[in-house]
Amino acid sequence: MSRADRLLRAIAGETVDTTPIWIMRQAGRYLPEYRATRAKAGSFLDLCKTPELACEVTIQPVDRIGVDAAILFSDILIPIEKMGVPLSFPAEGPRLEPVRDRAGIDALRIPDADAEMPYVMEAIRLVRRALDGKVPLIGFSGAPFTLMTYVVEGQTSKQFAETKRLMFTAPDAAHALLAKLSDTVIAYLTAQIRAGAQVVQLFDSWVGQLAPEDFRVFALPYVKKIIAAIKPLGVPIIYFANDGAALLRDAATCGADVLGLDWRLPLDEARRMTGDAITLQGNLDPCVLFSPVAEIERRAADILRRAGDRLHVFNLGHGILPPTPPEHAQALVEIVHRLGARPAAK
Amino acid sequence: MSRADRLLRAIAGETVDTTPIWIMRQAGRYLPEYRATRAKAGSFLDLCKTPELACEVTIQPVDRIGVDAAILFSDILIPIEKMGVPLSFPAEGPRLEPVRDRAGIDALRIPDADAEMPYVMEAIRLVRRALDGKVPLIGFSGAPFTLMTYVVEGQTSKQFAETKRLMFTAPDAAHALLAKLSDTVIAYLTAQIRAGAQVVQLFDSWVGQLAPEDFRVFALPYVKKIIAAIKPLGVPIIYFANDGAALLRDAATCGADVLGLDWRLPLDEARRMTGDAITLQGNLDPCVLFSPVAEIERRAADILRRAGDRLHVFNLGHGILPPTPPEHAQALVEIVHRLGARPAAK
Repeated sequence: MSRADRLLRAIAGETVDTTPIWIMRQAGRYLPEYRATRAKAGSFLDLCKTPELACEVTIQPVDRIGVDAAILFSDILIPIEKMGVPLSFPAEGPRLEPVRDRAGIDALRIPDADAEMPYVMEAIRLVRRALDGKVPLIGFSGAPFTLMTYVVEGQTSKQFAETKRLMFTAPDAAHALLAKLSDTVIAYLTAQIRAGAQVVQLFDSWVGQLAPEDFRVFALPYVKKIIAAIKPLGVPIIYFANDGAALLRDAATCGADVLGLDWRLPLDEARRMTGDAITLQGNLDPCVLFSPVAEIERRAADILRRAGDRLHVFNLGHGILPPTPPEHAQALVEIVHRLGARPAAK
Repeated sequence: MSRADRLLRAIAGETVDTTPIWIMRQAGRYLPEYRATRAKAGSFLDLCKTPELACEVTIQPVDRIGVDAAILFSDILIPIEKMGVPLSFPAEGPRLEPVRDRAGIDALRIPDADAEMPYVMEAIRLVRRALDGKVPLIGFSGAPFTLMTYVVEGQTSKQFAETKRLMFTAPDAAHALLAKLSDTVIAYLTAQIRAGAQVVQLFDSWVGQLAPEDFRVFALPYVKKIIAAIKPLGVPIIYFANDGAALLRDAATCGADVLGLDWRLPLDEARRMTGDAITLQGNLDPCVLFSPVAEIERRAADILRRAGDRLHVFNLGHGILPPTPPEHAQALVEIVHRLGARPAAK
């Protein structure tokens, strides 16, 4: 067994030679070679929309860090722009023209993913060719609730008050928006899979802002709809429910093959809440990578112990942070592969 | 029974006539009369430091909203400034000169609360006189971990990377800072209680950023130390562990009389995690107050049902938001008092 199929076989519940690992935002600012490519590209959006450069940064961590998968370099807001919401990325983070009423929601379009985001699909094809089977390629999308927060707030938020105001005062409008976002995500992920994505992850970065009751009404049904729609395409699906410690029982019913966790709940507790069928992904606090390597090893060993020897994909509990030393990311991969090794399966 | 002792008796585990309610940040920007006083005061810090005005805004919601307690108007960063960290409140939120190394930490002082924050103690005395026993007065402080994030980051944060970098790369320095903060909090709350605070709440607003292992090392021991130190003064203590769904079992051991919850975990699940001895406070999503009153009632009824008829103090799961209609806050208080009524105890 090798890096080529470690991730896919672990997700399928098979016993693998060692625990697979990839790192959220592994193609990112902590890598000097990423920063060099980014400087060539011009803006962040230019980098997302130039297939050769997006391919270049997608590939960078595969050899440098030694992860068991590549994840497409892109941004969850790309399809939102194509729905008709102007988007920019100033230094403070993404800025959109917020949409907060029914008329604005009704005016949003469901983009033709292949025709309107050809650079994403071309990047996927280039990455697949460049990887040549070395590791699988993960495609991704934002989940509808998280995408809704950007559409409604116009930026990242702390309280998500405008999003919840829409949900709680105009639930029909909120559901209309979520339905459009879901149809967009279905078309977008379908195109990614047809272009060559071998796994897809739905990022629900802000779903932890929801009470369980609201998760069951405004998030979970749309995640289920998307997963049901793309499941026939035959690629494994990861649902990342960030800050979702109180939502995991429900989240585990979404139909995904893998449930991604942040670092707030120990993996064995998450396992007790989610049953024995779903693969769990996570869940090291990204800031632990600032620690000395011995401490990284102690923490990784604890996660591996709690995860047991099946149905686990190692990852951070959120994206790797820009000030992380790349050699600590490398060390983590080495540690997980070493400590996660199953002698019998070698 | 009346508003005068409803809160204190509910905290003591007695059966009360109806569920007591107060609202985090009830003296705040959603009230036009607060905004008028604030305009008189000049800056936000001026308002905090002028006892007559702080008293005025503390009292405002008691009659207007009908809550069962007043909470002192102040800010958790007031004692931090007195430790020697310059502080300002521009429109974007608090700004401090960050302290990130051992020398900076060693230079911090433990302020004499009465001598250096006399305006806080004077505001407490004025409020007690003005309330004249109508409802009890809650004093408060930030909890050490949350205070540490402000000292180290210099502002609010999303990732708390600098705080965790200190914890994970210089744990001795982090513990030195936490110990100083704890001593400051003990002196500060002791002075508040001596001045007349009848309940105190420890706000651990950012503790939900910690994995349980780190909570047990960097947060809980200091909360326990503070509670043990002020417990002999005989006033009930509330520990608010925001976003702490994965921390509640541990948090419930801190020695507090009341555990404050955000809205992420249903109260009955929180009860199962925390045992039958501690009073639970919460836990309505503040954004629900944007909803029509019928929906506010449905949600409040659900919380009251899950809470059962003892050991519950109603509150929002976080501070009330500035765009909240004051009449919705009034409606919530009326609803909780009506639906929470125990006929037998009337």
